Parts: sequence; C-alpha cells; structure tokens
Amino acid sequence: CAASAGLTEEQKEFQKVALDFATKEMAPHMAEWDEKEIFPVETMRKAAQLGFGGIYVRPDVGGSGLSRLDTSVIFEALSTGCTSTTAYMSIHNMCAWMIDSFGNEEQRHKFCPSLCSMEKFASYCLTEPGSGSDAASLLTSAKRKGDTYILNGSKAFISGGGDTDVYVVMCRTGGPGPKGISCMVLEKGTPGLSFGKKEKKVGWNSQPTRAVIFEDCVVPVENRLGAEGQGFNIAMKGLNGGRINIASCSLGAAHASVLLAQEHLTVRKQFGEPLANNQYLQFRLAEMATRLVAARLMVRNAARALQEGREDAAVLCSMAKLFATDECFAICNQALQMHGGYGYLKDYAVQQFVRDIRVHQILEGTNEVMRMIVARNLLQV
Amino acid sequence: CAASAGLTEEQKEFQKVALDFATKEMAPHMAEWDEKEIFPVETMRKAAQLGFGGIYVRPDVGGSGLSRLDTSVIFEALSTGCTSTTAYMSIHNMCAWMIDSFGNEEQRHKFCPSLCSMEKFASYCLTEPGSGSDAASLLTSAKRKGDTYILNGSKAFISGGGDTDVYVVMCRTGGPGPKGISCMVLEKGTPGLSFGKKEKKVGWNSQPTRAVIFEDCVVPVENRLGAEGQGFNIAMKGLNGGRINIASCSLGAAHASVLLAQEHLTVRKQFGEPLANNQYLQFRLAEMATRLVAARLMVRNAARALQEGREDAAVLCSMAKLFATDECFAICNQALQMHGGYGYLKDYAVQQFVRDIRVHQILEGTNEVMRMIVARNLLQV
Amino acid sequence: CAASAGLTEEQKEFQKVALDFATKEMAPHMAEWDEKEIFPVETMRKAAQLGFGGIYVRPDVGGSGLSRLDTSVIFEALSTGCTSTTAYMSIHNMCAWMIDSFGNEEQRHKFCPSLCSMEKFASYCLTEPGSGSDAASLLTSAKRKGDTYILNGSKAFISGGGDTDVYVVMCRTGGPGPKGISCMVLEKGTPGLSFGKKEKKVGWNSQPTRAVIFEDCVVPVENRLGAEGQGFNIAMKGLNGGRINIASCSLGAAHASVLLAQEHLTVRKQFGEPLANNQYLQFRLAEMATRLVAARLMVRNAARALQEGREDAAVLCSMAKLFATDECFAICNQALQMHGGYGYLKDYAVQQFVRDIRVHQILEGTNEVMRMIVARNLLQV
Amino acid sequence: CAASAGLTEEQKEFQKVALDFATKEMAPHMAEWDEKEIFPVETMRKAAQLGFGGIYVRPDVGGSGLSRLDTSVIFEALSTGCTSTTAYMSIHNMCAWMIDSFGNEEQRHKFCPSLCSMEKFASYCLTEPGSGSDAASLLTSAKRKGDTYILNGSKAFISGGGDTDVYVVMCRTGGPGPKGISCMVLEKGTPGLSFGKKEKKVGWNSQPTRAVIFEDCVVPVENRLGAEGQGFNIAMKGLNGGRINIASCSLGAAHASVLLAQEHLTVRKQFGEPLANNQYLQFRLAEMATRLVAARLMVRNAARALQEGREDAAVLCSMAKLFATDECFAICNQALQMHGGYGYLKDYAVQQFVRDIRVHQILEGTNEVMRMIVARNLLQV
Repeated sequence: CAASAGLTEEQKEFQKVALDFATKEMAPHMAEWDEKEIFPVETMRKAAQLGFGGIYVRPDVGGSGLSRLDTSVIFEALSTGCTSTTAYMSIHNMCAWMIDSFGNEEQRHKFCPSLCSMEKFASYCLTEPGSGSDAASLLTSAKRKGDTYILNGSKAFISGGGDTDVYVVMCRTGGPGPKGISCMVLEKGTPGLSFGKKEKKVGWNSQPTRAVIFEDCVVPVENRLGAEGQGFNIAMKGLNGGRINIASCSLGAAHASVLLAQEHLTVRKQFGEPLANNQYLQFRLAEMATRLVAARLMVRNAARALQEGREDAAVLCSMAKLFATDECFAICNQALQMHGGYGYLKDYAVQQFVRDIRVHQILEGTNEVMRMIVARNLLQV
Repeated sequence: CAASAGLTEEQKEFQKVALDFATKEMAPHMAEWDEKEIFPVETMRKAAQLGFGGIYVRPDVGGSGLSRLDTSVIFEALSTGCTSTTAYMSIHNMCAWMIDSFGNEEQRHKFCPSLCSMEKFASYCLTEPGSGSDAASLLTSAKRKGDTYILNGSKAFISGGGDTDVYVVMCRTGGPGPKGISCMVLEKGTPGLSFGKKEKKVGWNSQPTRAVIFEDCVVPVENRLGAEGQGFNIAMKGLNGGRINIASCSLGAAHASVLLAQEHLTVRKQFGEPLANNQYLQFRLAEMATRLVAARLMVRNAARALQEGREDAAVLCSMAKLFATDECFAICNQALQMHGGYGYLKDYAVQQFVRDIRVHQILEGTNEVMRMIVARNLLQV
Repeated sequence: CAASAGLTEEQKEFQKVALDFATKEMAPHMAEWDEKEIFPVETMRKAAQLGFGGIYVRPDVGGSGLSRLDTSVIFEALSTGCTSTTAYMSIHNMCAWMIDSFGNEEQRHKFCPSLCSMEKFASYCLTEPGSGSDAASLLTSAKRKGDTYILNGSKAFISGGGDTDVYVVMCRTGGPGPKGISCMVLEKGTPGLSFGKKEKKVGWNSQPTRAVIFEDCVVPVENRLGAEGQGFNIAMKGLNGGRINIASCSLGAAHASVLLAQEHLTVRKQFGEPLANNQYLQFRLAEMATRLVAARLMVRNAARALQEGREDAAVLCSMAKLFATDECFAICNQALQMHGGYGYLKDYAVQQFVRDIRVHQILEGTNEVMRMIVARNLLQV
Repeated sequence: CAASAGLTEEQKEFQKVALDFATKEMAPHMAEWDEKEIFPVETMRKAAQLGFGGIYVRPDVGGSGLSRLDTSVIFEALSTGCTSTTAYMSIHNMCAWMIDSFGNEEQRHKFCPSLCSMEKFASYCLTEPGSGSDAASLLTSAKRKGDTYILNGSKAFISGGGDTDVYVVMCRTGGPGPKGISCMVLEKGTPGLSFGKKEKKVGWNSQPTRAVIFEDCVVPVENRLGAEGQGFNIAMKGLNGGRINIASCSLGAAHASVLLAQEHLTVRKQFGEPLANNQYLQFRLAEMATRLVAARLMVRNAARALQEGREDAAVLCSMAKLFATDECFAICNQALQMHGGYGYLKDYAVQQFVRDIRVHQILEGTNEVMRMIVARNLLQV
C-alpha cells in the first residue's frame, strides 16, 4: 500500500525527487508560510528547476513533457511538504498547459518558458462573485475594439491573484451561455487590471487569494487563446487536469497525516502503553490507510484515462476529485483527532493539512458539482 | 424544532437574554477576537452581570442558583455569538461550581463571589503533558510541608492559563492512581507558579491556552478543596457538568451555522435561482436540522439527569458529549460546504464555528474516552 | 440510558406489561411467524385485552385513552418481541384512531369497539401503484350515486390487506390534488372489493401485504369519514401518529438488537477471551447505545409535541421518523455484524430485526419524503 | 466508468462471455434458486464448460490458467446474474486452486479435473463453532494411525457442506497454534464424515450451508495436502485469493443494483415526473457509482498484486475485501431504498443482492479481522 506501488521505475524516480524536495525544502517551512502568509516564490522556482513548473507542458517551450499520471505522482509527493503551496503550483501548471495546448506557437513561446521556469507565475480566472458552480453564466465582458478587447468585470477567489504575472481569463465575447466565452491571457501591469484585498482564509495561506478586477482593461487580440467562443471549452479541459491535480494534493496531505498519526500513536503513551495498543485506534488507522489507497487508485485511474484521451475521462476526473477530496479530508481530520489536544495546536502539522485541504472539496468545481457531472453521465438528465 | 421548544417560560426568558447578549455583545466581535487573539474580559464581565459567571453556583456566594438544564440553555445561546468565548466561560463556571460544591464555607466565600462577577477568572488544571485521557496517572506532586503543600510538575492545554487569576489544580498528595489525588485552589502570583508560551491554535483563539508550571510552588493547606485523596472525584464531578456545557457550546455553534447556511442558500443564486432550490441542498439541510434537534435533546436530557442526581447521569453526560460534539462538528462543516468558496473566508462566520468546535471532540475527555465510559457501563469491562 | 428513564410510574407500568407480553407471548414465536408467514391473530387479541388494540382511542368506544407518548413506549416495548407484528398493530391503532377522531358518533360506535378488542382488524389504504411519495395524486375514484359511492381503482402495499376486516380508504371524490380526496371505511365482503396476491417480502412476514382492488365497489355514503374533500387531511393526521409509531417499532428492534449483541459479545470467545474484550467492538457498541438513546429521545419528543398539539409537531414527527428509522437500521445491522456468521442465520433473532425494520425507512412516507417535509419547513420551498 | 475500462481485449472477451452467461443462464433463475433453496448444479456445470470451474487452476489438470485479475473480472460479471451462486463458485475455485498449488502430482490429477469440470464440487472447511476469527485455534484433531489420520471435531458454516463431494479440511496434527495445523482433502462418503442440518439464512440460499462433522473419520495419509504443519499457511494463501473473489462478487451485486436503481429512477414517476428528476436521488446515484468504481479499482489492484506475488499483496487483499464488501453493501442497500416499497418485495431483484452480499462483510475473515490485518501491517502491533 505504498504510494509507489505499481509505478514504473521512472515514476518512482520522479516521486523520490519530489518527496525529497517536499521533505527538505517545503516541510520545514510550511508552518511559517502559513502563519506569515508567505508566497514562497524562491522555493517554487527551485521546484521548477526540477521540472515541476510545467510538468505536463511540452518540452519545446520548457515543459517536462510528462504524463498526467506522472504529474499526479509528483503533486502528491510535493503536497506532503506543503499542500497549499503545491496546490498553487498545480494551478500554475494547469495554466501553463492551457497556453501550451490551446495557444498558437507565438503564444506558447512567449508565455510558457517563463512559466515553466516559474520566473513568472500564473493565475486561472474563471469564477466570479455571481457565478461559482454555474461558471458558464460569467459576466466579465470583453468588447472587441480594433485590435483589442476591452474587459470589464471581476473574478473572485483567484489563487495567486495580485502576486502573479500572467492571468488566464475567461470572459464573454459573445452571447449568453458557454458558447459566448473566450479565453484571454493578461499580463500584470495591463492598464485597467487591478486586484481586491488579500483574503483571509482558513488555510491555503501560502498562496494569496484576491479578486481580479477589470475596468476598461485593454487586451490585445493576439492575447486571445484559441478562437472566440472556445473559452469555456478550454476552461473545462483545463479543469479536468486541474481536478486530478487538486485531488493529488489531497492525497499528499492525507498520506502525510496518516504517517503523522502513525508516529503519534507509536510514541504517545496513555494508561502506561503506546496509544497504538488501542484496538479502536488501530482499526481506525487501518480504515484511513485503506481509504487512502482507494483514493489514490481513483486519482491515478482518472489520470490514465485523461492521458489516453478516453471518452470517460471527464467523468472519471470528477469522480476522482469527489472521492479523493472527501475521503482525504476525513482522513486528515481523523488523524487530527488521533493527536488529541496536540492536533489542535499549530506546532503540529496535522492541523495545517486539515485546514489546507478543506477547500479542495469546494474549488475547481464543488463536490456538489462533481456529483452533478457524474449524475448527468449516468442518467442523461 | 426551535431551540426553545419544551422549555419553561422562565427558561425561555434566560434564553432570550442570552441570545440578545450573544447577538449584540459577542457576535459583532467574534472575528476580531479570533484574529487578534483577544480574551474579552470586559464582555465576559458584562455577561456576569446577567448572572452568567456562576450560573449553577449557589446564590449566597453570588451565583445564579440555576439548574444544569438552565445552564445548558444559556451556554447554547451565548455560543451562537462566540463559541470560543462561551466555551471558556463554561470552564470558568465549572471551576466556580467545584469550589461552591466541594469547598468549605471559608473557601466558598473567599473565591466564589469574585468568580461569579468575573472580577476574577478561573482555570481548570487536570491534563498534563504525559496524561491526557489517562487523567488519573497525573504526576504533579504536592508534598505536605507544615501548613503548606509544595507543588512540582506541570499542566498542559490550560484554558485561560496565564491570563486567569484562580487555578483549580489536581495534584498528587498520595500514592499512584485516582485515590492519591487532591484538589488545590491556587491564586496567580503564588511563588513558583509560572506559565508556558501562549499556544497557537486552530480555533478557540479568544481564550489563551498555556502550560501551567509548578516549581516548588507553595500552597497553603487551607487552599485544598475537600479532603486529601478526594481530588479525582471532584475533578470528575466537575467534568460531568463540563461535558454538558461544552456540548451545549457545540449546539450553539451548530445552530448558528444552520441559520447561516439557510440564509446563504436563500440569498445566493446559481444557475439563475437561489441555491435553496437545489433539492440536494434542501435535503442535506433537513438532515442537519434533524441532527441538531437530536443533539440538543441528548444534551438537555443529560442535563436533567445530572440535575436530578440520577444514577445514569455520568453515562448520559458522556453520551451527550460524544453525540453532540461529533454531530455538531459535522453540521458546521456541512454548513461551510454550503457556503462554497465563501465558507473558506474569514469574512464569513461559519468557518470560525467549524474551527472553534473542532476541539470539543477532543477536550473534557476525548470522544474516544466517552466511548470507553459508555462501553464500560454497558459491558462492565 | 434505560428505556424507562424519565417516564412516569404509570408509563413504566405500561412498559413493563408490554415488555412482559413481548417476552412471553411474542418473542418465542417471532421466528416461526416469519418463516411460515403467520398473521398471529390470537396473539394480537391477547394484546388487545391489555388495551393495545386502541391505545390512543377514547375509552367510550373501547380505547385505552392513552397519550402518544404512552403509545410510543408501548409499541417500543412490544416491538422487542416481534417488530413485524407490532408494526402491523401500530397501523391498526392508527386506523382506529382515525375513525375515533374523524368519525361521527355512529361510525365511532360501529367500528371502534371491535377494532379496540381486535375482534376485527383494520388496514390503511393510501398508497397506489402509481402514487407512493406523491400520495395526493391518487387515482382511485369514488363517484357519488344516490346514497352510495362507486369505487374504482386499486391500492398497493396494504398491510393486512385481504386478511383484515376494515379498510380505511382514501379515494377521489372531487378534482385533482389533495382537496379532491375523501376517506371511506369499507368492510371486507363489500361487493367489488378484492385483493391481489400475497406479496413475498424481505421481512414483515407476520403481516400479509396485498393490493386492494375496487371494481365498481359500492360503499354507502354513511361510511365516509368526515366531509368530502377532507380525506387527505385525515390521512396526513393519521400519518403523524403513524410515523411516531413506526419509529417506536424501530426503537424496539434496535433495543433488542443491542441487547442481543451485548449478550453475544459477552458469551462468545475468540482468541481465548470474550469478544467483549475487543476495544473496537466495545466502542462500536457504545456508539450504538448512544444513537439508540438519541433516537428514543427524538421519538418521545415528537410524541409529546403531537400530544400537545404543538405547531411544530408534524415536522418533529418527520424528523423523528427519519432519524430513528435510519439510525435503528444501522444499529441492528451493526448488531448483526457483531454476531459474525451467526448473525446471518435465521436461528438468531438479530437478522429478523434487520429484515423487519428495513422497510421502516420506506413506508409511512419514505425517508426522502421526510427530508422534503423538513426542508420545506426550513426553507419555505 | 464501465466495468470494462482498462481491461485487455482478452479480458473484455471473458467478461462478455461471463456477463452473457449471467444474463441468460443465471439472472432468470436467481429468485427461484433463492426461494426454493436450489443448489443449481447443472447451471454451474454449464459455467464450468466455459472454463469457470477452475479459472486460476493450471491447464494440465483442466484449469483455465487465467490470472487473478481475469478471475476477478469473471466473478464480478457472473455475480450480476446470481451473487450467491457465484460466491459458491468462487469458493469452489479457491479449493481447486489450493489442490493445484499445494498438492502433489497425484493429488492434482486425482482431484482437479473433476473439480474444474464441476462434475464434483468442493467445500472449504476452516471455521469451527469455537473458532471463527481466531482460525488458528481450531480444535478438529487428526491423529496419525498407520497410513491414516483419524479426524474428530466439526466445522461450521461450510458452504456447500453436505451437497459437495470434496472437502478441503484444516485440522490439527500437531500442537496448538498455526504450526500444528495440516490440510486434508476428504471425499464425501468417507466413514465418519457427516453433516449438520441445512442452515436457514438471510441470503446465500442457492448454496447449502451445513456443519461438517468428523467422528473417528478415517483419512488416508496420501490425502494430506502439503506437509504436516503447513495447513494454516495453505488456508491463508487460499484466502488471499478468496477475499478478492468474494469482493468481486460484491462488485457484481453492486453493479447490478446500480443498474436496477438507474432503471427504476428513469421509469418510475412521482409528482408527474420520473424519479430521476430528483436532484437528491441523482446525486446519491452519482455517489453510488463513484464508490463502485473505487471498490472495483481496489479489488483489481489487489488481484494484480497477488498475481505478481508482491509483498504487499496480503494487505491489499484485506483492504480490498474490507472496502469493497462494505461499500458494495451500502450501494445495494441504497439502491433498494431508491426502489421505495418495491425494493422490499421479492419480485424485485435488488433486495436479493442486499441479502446475498450482507454475508460478504462477515466471511473469509470478518471485516473486523481485515482491519486487524491492515493495522498489524501499519503498526507492527
């Protein structure tokens, strides 16, 4: 039931590199990044040197050219060191992939190299204050004016917003509904582009979250990704991978929490013997480990399906996101319980994993939306 | 299914007073107290003017002389305004009650009046770094020396520790096991009494938590509550009420969270209609409300049993604590989920309720210990 | 946590009588009644001699004139002896109460005495093949013709159907919707009244279930209960009590199952010691007992609200039915698990409790309908 | 999320053959086999003609020589037609494999061909009345006497017992504990071999269950499988595969139940529209499908690990059995609920799946024993 079971030698190698990085470069700082709300730019750039800035981006623009499964393995491993930071990196990777996949050669070569090296950082801008689950109803407008679009509107809950350099923005160039949406790439500094206050959050504190605001924001037409009206499709394609990635981050958090609980049960004594001697706790730990294995299989299975372009990939990604983020939260939360009072203290990492992954059940499509996607597939409703 | 159903007119009156206080004096500040880690001394003193500093303490020493059920109703109501602050108040009340119940007349008149008015604040000191669930194995020693005891050892996770004035301390005056434990009342400023660093926690931030340290700490014999060897019994008697109280605080948090979710579902629109039109969310809300009613009945039933001195009171208190704190956490957490991304932001109260009540499943006996107590009663194991 | 906690002396007396009857007259036969599908008419008549045939029917027509809470206590106790039989008795009692409450004096005196003595047995006929959850859409028509109604249509899943004497039938005398429904009392032998085949079921085998078929069935106008158009209201009023009653039967099954599990854990040895020494099983048993107490409080609380005619009674009855039937099924099912392989054998009673109460989550309004009722109350949707 | 996703073409072919057989030869009879407790010998022999009598037995003795994953795919498919019958077949296959793997050439050629063709049927005899979970404490004794062993003792809950021809029996040839156990193959008709009454069960009615009794039962030494003292090891090796197989049968039951629920929701109307239009039911169905996919991945992953002889195979088999049998029972039970009243009638297949798979959580090691195995692996306790 090791995280490496069933992987190729090469994948085990990636995994080892990522685990080492997580252990040495991230874990020692995760509490501080959380407390002081530090966006660890330099650490991420080091990770990028290992190829983690554009994992599934093609090599000709600086990417690592790895598969979705490789990507999942890497994010799971990194997430054991800091889930919040890894989750941001997964969004960054998704943006880089979107430009790589839907951009023209000019766009690819303009944006991808500096994203893959994490010289620059990217944000994914879909959700709006008035449209969360119902993303296709977004209102941010992009009116064509000569060789530019004039954007007006705002985006909410943007990971990295304000601190990042490149914004992949869904906006409305046409009529209502998904067909009227286009995808633009904006750079920080664009006139009319501003940011809301930094949100205070339960977790995910190593990545800033802000509203992104467009006020007569002028974007050159050449910054449009794909054709007009293709934006929603691009956004959803991105999210398929995004859901696996975020679910992978949940796996890492849960894996780390199981190990922390295992350690605590072994070391901590009550009634004259280690907590590990309590059968109830043994059996609960067994359930946690079992569910973690199931969650991991779901995520990797979806990653394979997506890689192979299978027809059922989108549904499997939704199932994986639903299952893994729900189960892994429960695992982390139970691991916290096993720590007793220590689990509630910020000196102990387990509580940070609980706080960080709580939002995975909500973002990249809430788990209620995941149920909706799966149900539609089953019932054609 | 209102919180007032089945209460007497008098109880409804207490409830109303407490709810008003929670709404006006606590709720507007709960986020700030959390963020800035403020121990709201003045607000609590105002609450004490309403009789909430010694609710089930006898009137001759300044208490309100109310029943355990009255107490539960009041803490539930206050907790809707700030769970963390109310939870501390419930511990303070427990300490005042212990002195009122097990102290001699001199002790009662010395300590209770200023505790009931919350001129002074109290802390309950049982848990030690090496003895959590297994409280009877505590190591803090109290050696008799003339008219004093010399205390050495330390206590962990002490609510109010360092900021409070009166410490009700379980320590070992005799041999190993529960029979060797006595209960002392210490005042801040006692030589040899010091405090650890202020703990950083997931929630409960409006009450400081510190270790309490005894180094050749000299306590007059007249500060001993009850006889030598009676301390563990006193501590457990206190906890029966303490468990109902903390469970009542969970009820308040859950009640407030259900109302917040209800409001959010009604106001927030997706797909062109209020979230409340989603049948899945309707049914989940119905489950939450149902479980809240069940939790409340468990708590009030245990409170009645304790008030009546029924033989099954201790078991019913354990069941109520187990059931109510588990279910209410699940309710609050589901209410957070219903808020979508907003639920993760500190601008929204629901996440604070989730963070604050998480520890209720752990303290005053973990819920694993509650299961043990219930199981022993069922199986005589 | 005894089932008698908090009851009056009188209620404890009823409870004792009912428990004795369950133990002596029902439990020894429940397996046989199940296997051979025996409707234990004589046993029920003996129960009626104790006043259990019309528990909450007024005394002037032979009823016991007890409260809803008394009724719940009695059905819980009887159900420990045979859940299926008691569940039928609860339906019979509901019918007798409907005639007592909504019938005129003639109807009351004609039908109630022989129902209270269980000389005659009653069936409640609401559900149709095409209308289960949506009861108000029922299609059975009753056309007025002189001093009679001509009924056509059919009813499904009728407890006692074919073996009982009196049928309380909801049928349509007016337009669509609830306002067009009236309530008739039919006697077996009425021309045009026939029955479908006896259904084979998972449990509830001591009560026959058949379709009830009306083909130009002639019913005298004087058999109509209440006014035309009042039928749906009568049916729902009956169900409020019916839901508490069926939930009470679930309590009895769960209580009996907890006792069986407790006994099995104590007696059965594995690894050289009683199963009861396994902490995991201890803790699970503690959870079961805790949830049983919560379920019982929910049911009794709803019974009190209904008795007092409180406004929130209908919602509390729905909550109680939802909570108690779900939790008690889980308790019985876990008790079966604790029996290991023995739990799967018909020689052991626990499996019959599981099979019998499974349908309680479905009938008298499915638990999905219960959620709907509660949600409507919360959200006004 | 189809059951065929990720399989090789060859595996898809096996699957199709097995599904066809299940649909045509088993499903039409499963209710009758259940009701009349028919052991469908001829149907199983037809299945054996397709190679399903010795799926993972080597071809030289009549087996199909397929992998554990192939086997799982086949049992899952067959189980959609009748879970109880397939579950027996899985035990039969396990026995045949044990003889194939641990028998000498003479034993292999003597027993395997007629087992693979299902001319003869096999039973696995480990559990005793006094040793279920603690199998290693079994008491059935085998005393060496010349070229024979004299067996005394009895086995409980033996699938096929009394109706089968070949009994693979664990018995004690040495001292206490696992090392004293040997494995014998007995044939029906052996003097001193008799059977208890046929057990009445909740489900699994198409396979007889009886005690197997040894009274001075004389077994030739050449019927011993492997060396003296190797029996427990052989039994456990068998069970690794047995756990995957029984879990596979749970998958089939759950898969069939999801399809039945899907169909029912689509066809059945309430409130003027198909049940499928209820969002709550949609989302619950989505959860069921998601959990089914997770369960299937767990089972197939364990099957692969076992096939590859990986070190973690035994733990993964335990995890798969725990997870799949628990989740699949919940899925079937929820599918029953979605059928409303129809779900409780024996005319509808869903209830039979619920009854049949209930025992999978208990046998081949209870799910509590699975937790113990996993916990030991995690904590070395």
